Amino acid sequence: MIDRLTKRIKELKAPVVVGLDPMLPYIPAQVRETAFREHGETLKGAAAAIEEFNRTIVDAICDLVPAVKPQIAMYEQFGLAGMAAYKQTVDYCRDKGLIVIGDIKRGDIGSTSSAYARAHLGHVQVGQNTFAPFGEDFCTVNPYLGTDGVQPFIDVCKAEKKGIFVLVKTSNPSSGEFQDRLIDGRPLYEWVGEKVAAWGETAMGEEYSYVGAVVGATYPKMGEILRRLMPRTLILVPGYGAQGGTADGLAPYFNEDGSGAIVNSSRGIIAAWKEEKYAAFGERRYGEAARQAAADMIADIRRVMPSGSDR
Amino acid sequence: MIDRLTKRIKELKAPVVVGLDPMLPYIPAQVRETAFREHGETLKGAAAAIEEFNRTIVDAICDLVPAVKPQIAMYEQFGLAGMAAYKQTVDYCRDKGLIVIGDIKRGDIGSTSSAYARAHLGHVQVGQNTFAPFGEDFCTVNPYLGTDGVQPFIDVCKAEKKGIFVLVKTSNPSSGEFQDRLIDGRPLYEWVGEKVAAWGETAMGEEYSYVGAVVGATYPKMGEILRRLMPRTLILVPGYGAQGGTADGLAPYFNEDGSGAIVNSSRGIIAAWKEEKYAAFGERRYGEAARQAAADMIADIRRVMPSGSDR
Repeated sequence: MIDRLTKRIKELKAPVVVGLDPMLPYIPAQVRETAFREHGETLKGAAAAIEEFNRTIVDAICDLVPAVKPQIAMYEQFGLAGMAAYKQTVDYCRDKGLIVIGDIKRGDIGSTSSAYARAHLGHVQVGQNTFAPFGEDFCTVNPYLGTDGVQPFIDVCKAEKKGIFVLVKTSNPSSGEFQDRLIDGRPLYEWVGEKVAAWGETAMGEEYSYVGAVVGATYPKMGEILRRLMPRTLILVPGYGAQGGTADGLAPYFNEDGSGAIVNSSRGIIAAWKEEKYAAFGERRYGEAARQAAADMIADIRRVMPSGSDR
Repeated sequence: MIDRLTKRIKELKAPVVVGLDPMLPYIPAQVRETAFREHGETLKGAAAAIEEFNRTIVDAICDLVPAVKPQIAMYEQFGLAGMAAYKQTVDYCRDKGLIVIGDIKRGDIGSTSSAYARAHLGHVQVGQNTFAPFGEDFCTVNPYLGTDGVQPFIDVCKAEKKGIFVLVKTSNPSSGEFQDRLIDGRPLYEWVGEKVAAWGETAMGEEYSYVGAVVGATYPKMGEILRRLMPRTLILVPGYGAQGGTADGLAPYFNEDGSGAIVNSSRGIIAAWKEEKYAAFGERRYGEAARQAAADMIADIRRVMPSGSDR
């Protein structure tokens, strides 16, 4: 799957992933109202609105970008109906040829991480039958518990040819509280990054490892150091756009040939119809607004990618 | 909810939480077979077996212990049907008067942690209506993202009078890889512990804070230090029994009056029927085996609790 992802990024010249994080205020009123008419103002109604919204966004962007990243919390907050919308979204995106990165940030002791890995990347056995419960292609993983909390995900990745992105340096303002603390003169995120590189060596694709890393766009200097520490690690970069990361800050996340990073934008694309810049599309053409915002983002990032990407 | 939990621990003289982590091999064959006959060897069938198993365990232990801790991964691995079984278990336990600690180990950037907090401890708004999607009383939280990843949980705790347990030092073998690394001469888990104590000061119950901590039973020396650093923090202690933690190692986790900690056992109680010690109960009386194992664990822990607990 890592090879498919890096190949699609090159084919499309688009190291971009669209975050499908559908907060209700991002969904145009007419979509919400239609769903509520059928299901009431219920969890089911919210889930139906999300599903319809996502289908329109996905239809609009699926030929421009290689991947999407649904943030499971935005579905989980609507309970079982929300989880069903998450699963429906994963399936719909994969049917459209998109690679799906489940942003689940799970991580626990070994036997529990195994269960999460089966749930999201692998298969679970029930009697004589096996099932792929959620069926994402990649998922994000929290490293706080160390190797035995991450290894079960890597084992499933190897068996299923799937991948993970381990949190190294997150994009939020207080990420430094623990992640930046110095250990033997170097910040914790570097130690985590080195571990990610070492885990990655055990699960290599052609160019990049099945084990990727999350490094926020909001900290370009740290991105530069981590790029060097993890040369064969694909970096998933959140925080572009709404969170304050700029394209100019993204260059260090790429390797010299223009590969090695994939940048996420959520709100900036899926809620583009609410921005002044795309207001001309109007509320009903929110899919077209998202498509234009995705195209603009791709152009913005191509501008700063190392020249190797013009091959 | 923290006051209710500390009160129930005292009333029952049982600082014990039963981990409802129903791996399929823990479920007696007749329970699985009955569920599979009705639903087939499907995710629904697995979920039905889990629900029936949990009901029997909960009926058997609900007057002995104050709380249960379902590990959501063990449900999530069975997809949407598994998540429904999780929700059903939470509801059933609360109906039986048990306090429910959702072992979900979520944690993300602020807006995303808000969504998780709403999902598990709070309410979500859909149009004019509000819903409590999963409705646990407490949940576990991962601190790797720092204050702005934890604060949304604390905000919901205050609004809803609920609580969290933040991972400080986990019970697994490789927990030390990052958690034990020295920062200015002190391990990371101490810095996290201090932060937990500070967060806790902003959300105090009568004796203990709404913000608790997870500290594994497998590291008693660290438990002793953390107990001192976090005097008003209730410590949730996993790792007793199957993971190797012993009652003798638990004394340091309690304050002098015998309060301040609650110890989890999962496999050792719910799968007691598989142990030689409880084999006399037989496979069909697995609930009674669990009850006896819970009673034995309570006695084992009372033995080592500071004498203040005899008040």
